[in-house]
Amino acid sequence: MRVGVFLFDGVDLLDAGGPYEVFLTASRLAARDGLAAPFEVITVSRTGEPVVAYGGLGLAPQAGIADCGPLDVLIVPGTIDVDAATGDDDLVAAIDHLAAASGLTASVCTGAFLLAAAGLLDGREWTTHWEDVDLLARRLGADRAVRGVRWVDADDVVTAAGLSSGIAMALHLVDRLAGRELAERTARQIDDDWHPDGVAAHHAGLS
Amino acid sequence: MRVGVFLFDGVDLLDAGGPYEVFLTASRLAARDGLAAPFEVITVSRTGEPVVAYGGLGLAPQAGIADCGPLDVLIVPGTIDVDAATGDDDLVAAIDHLAAASGLTASVCTGAFLLAAAGLLDGREWTTHWEDVDLLARRLGADRAVRGVRWVDADDVVTAAGLSSGIAMALHLVDRLAGRELAERTARQIDDDWHPDGVAAHHAGLS
Repeated sequence: MRVGVFLFDGVDLLDAGGPYEVFLTASRLAARDGLAAPFEVITVSRTGEPVVAYGGLGLAPQAGIADCGPLDVLIVPGTIDVDAATGDDDLVAAIDHLAAASGLTASVCTGAFLLAAAGLLDGREWTTHWEDVDLLARRLGADRAVRGVRWVDADDVVTAAGLSSGIAMALHLVDRLAGRELAERTARQIDDDWHPDGVAAHHAGLS
Repeated sequence: MRVGVFLFDGVDLLDAGGPYEVFLTASRLAARDGLAAPFEVITVSRTGEPVVAYGGLGLAPQAGIADCGPLDVLIVPGTIDVDAATGDDDLVAAIDHLAAASGLTASVCTGAFLLAAAGLLDGREWTTHWEDVDLLARRLGADRAVRGVRWVDADDVVTAAGLSSGIAMALHLVDRLAGRELAERTARQIDDDWHPDGVAAHHAGLS
């Protein structure tokens, strides 16, 4: 399966880097056992040109939307400046384009606002960063927000809560797409205290 | 305080991206409250030229060791191909150079092997990824490894366990350098289930 991590100016490095590392690690562990690597990870920006992450680090993706090829999983990370991202029509159109050709689209943190802007949350349950759930619920009109969880799996659209929750959500996708055993080994390999049920006990009551 | 995140070919994105995001977030939260931002984060490669992270993503750092200026905290992430990194004399010399001019040097995951190669673990307690602790202990001759923890704080040298533990270690540094309250707010902001005592219950018995 081909996993594309979408990058854009202002992207949060941890939102992108968590799932990137999870899928790479799952494939490395499978390959170590002589099995076929379940995931190929590719980073994609709209044009294929470098972008600048929040904080100033430059990121040079491996492809643009025109040449990244078909994706099975599209990861859309979040950003601090949500209005700049959702107000960028070319950016939203790029996500819409990639999502339409992907089997599964998953956001991390405020990446849910980009999915919403592309119409991908309509009629589905979703989550986002605890600080922003109410804002996005108002924006969407109908509140199908789920609070106090690490991620919401609405079949072909999966949304994660804040930053570190993207790691937990990616482990869930490994579980769903390649099995529980590999997901648990991947969690152990990246030293993450992953719970397959996705409950985020530590921020219950905050969101 | 100036925090430098060191980048090199093969660097693990999550090892680098976790602390990068933690220090940026802590500063943003402080600035929101009208306080001085406690941390400035800068990414640094040996030459200042771009590097390629494990998995193929290009990273364009903000400075090289010649022009990054003095650092208060140096973060050394890990890599899968430890032998390639520790066998690169220029890379080890760059870390030695930066560490000598920094008040505090902290590794994530197999970054501890780079600190060891630069002589920074001699006579100190340390940790690394649970899978590699025994190897590094043999390499160092005297086993001052600490197992089953998220990080080891040996004053001017701090070492973290595997990948995600770099996030926990960075939160500990926020705690140590800017206070417990900001560390706890930062953990909540990045949706991380941080424990100030650094015990990694989930991998006790594995390492």
